[in-house]
Amino acid sequence: MGQVPAIADGSFNLFESHAILVYLACAFPGVADHWYPADLFRRATINSVLDWHHSNLRHGASTYVLNTLLAPFLGLQLNPQAAADAEKLLSSSLSKIESIWLKRNGKFLLGGFQPSIADLSLVCEIMQLELLDENDRIRILGPHKKVLEWIENTKNATRPHFEEVHQVLYRAKTRFQEQRSMGANNTNSSKRLGLPSKM
Amino acid sequence: MGQVPAIADGSFNLFESHAILVYLACAFPGVADHWYPADLFRRATINSVLDWHHSNLRHGASTYVLNTLLAPFLGLQLNPQAAADAEKLLSSSLSKIESIWLKRNGKFLLGGFQPSIADLSLVCEIMQLELLDENDRIRILGPHKKVLEWIENTKNATRPHFEEVHQVLYRAKTRFQEQRSMGANNTNSSKRLGLPSKM
Repeated sequence: MGQVPAIADGSFNLFESHAILVYLACAFPGVADHWYPADLFRRATINSVLDWHHSNLRHGASTYVLNTLLAPFLGLQLNPQAAADAEKLLSSSLSKIESIWLKRNGKFLLGGFQPSIADLSLVCEIMQLELLDENDRIRILGPHKKVLEWIENTKNATRPHFEEVHQVLYRAKTRFQEQRSMGANNTNSSKRLGLPSKM
Repeated sequence: MGQVPAIADGSFNLFESHAILVYLACAFPGVADHWYPADLFRRATINSVLDWHHSNLRHGASTYVLNTLLAPFLGLQLNPQAAADAEKLLSSSLSKIESIWLKRNGKFLLGGFQPSIADLSLVCEIMQLELLDENDRIRILGPHKKVLEWIENTKNATRPHFEEVHQVLYRAKTRFQEQRSMGANNTNSSKRLGLPSKM
C-alpha cells in the first residue's frame, strides 16, 4: 500500500493508525483495559470518537498545517483559502472535544480517569500545531483551556514515552523557529530543514 | 452531537456509521461471524479498510457529489476545482480497492467469500454516484470492472435489504434525471426535488 503509519508483526502487516492501536491493544496480553476497554459500550464510544476524528480534527489540523507551512516542502502551493476553511473545521472540532467529550469529571476523553487510545490519537494530531508560528498556535488553541489541560494530562500519563516519540517533531519545530527568526523564505529551505518527506 | 447517522439502543446513544456497524455486530448474539470476524487478524484488516475509507473513498465520493450536484441544495456554491480534485482521489481510491482488496479470489474485500461490514460501508458510499449524470458516473466507475462486479455481489448477498435501504436514493436519482431531461436549473429546484437536507 506504500502508506504510513504501518506495522509488521511477524508476517502480519497492517496500516492505518487507529487499526494499529486497536490491534496492539487486543493482540498483546497485559495491555491495561483502559486503553481499549473490553466493555461493549465504552469500546463503542471510543470507536465513535476515533471514527469522528478522521473527517473533523484530523482533516482540519492536517489541512491547516499543510496549507500554512508544509506544502512547499512537498512540492505543493500554499492555499490560503484551504487554510482558512481548515481553521474553521479545526476550531469547531476543538470546541466539540471540549463541550462534549471533556465535559465530564475525568481527566481524559469520555470522562475517563485513565487515557484510552482515543486520547493518544487525538492529542498526537493536535501536537503537529507545535510547528506553527506561535501567534497562529495561540489563536487556535488558546480559547480551549480544557483541551490544553487534557493535552498536559495525556503527556503526564504517558511520559517519558510521549516526549520520546515527539523528538522528531520538536526538532522540526526548532528548525522552523530558526528559519522564521532568520526571515528566510520557507519555499527555499526544505533541504536545510532536512524534514522527512512524510512528516 | 446533532450528527447522522446515529442510533439509540435503549439508553445507549451512538453515532458514526463504522462505530455503529461494529457495535451492532458485537452487541447482538446471532450476527454471523463473517460480518466482523472474531479472528484478530481478519478483524484488524477490516478495521484498516474502514479507517482508510474515511480520508479516501468517502472523502473523494462525497466531495465530488457535493461539488457537482448537491451544493446548491445545501446553500453552497458548486466548486469545479474541488470537484476535479475529488474525482482524482475517488478514482485513485477505486483503483486501490480493485488492485489491493479485490485482487484475491473471493467475491468480497480482502478475499472474503461472504461480505463484511467493510463491504457494506464502501459499497454504500459508492452508491451515491447513482445521483450523477450518467456520463459522469460511467467515466468514473466504468474503468473499474472488478468494483462493478463487487457492487453486484454485495447487492446480491444482501437483497432484499440493499434495495430497501436505497429507496430514498433511487427516488432522488429519478427526480434528478427528470430535472436534467427538463433542462431545469438545479439551483432553483431544491424544493421541487424535496431532498432531505442531510442527503
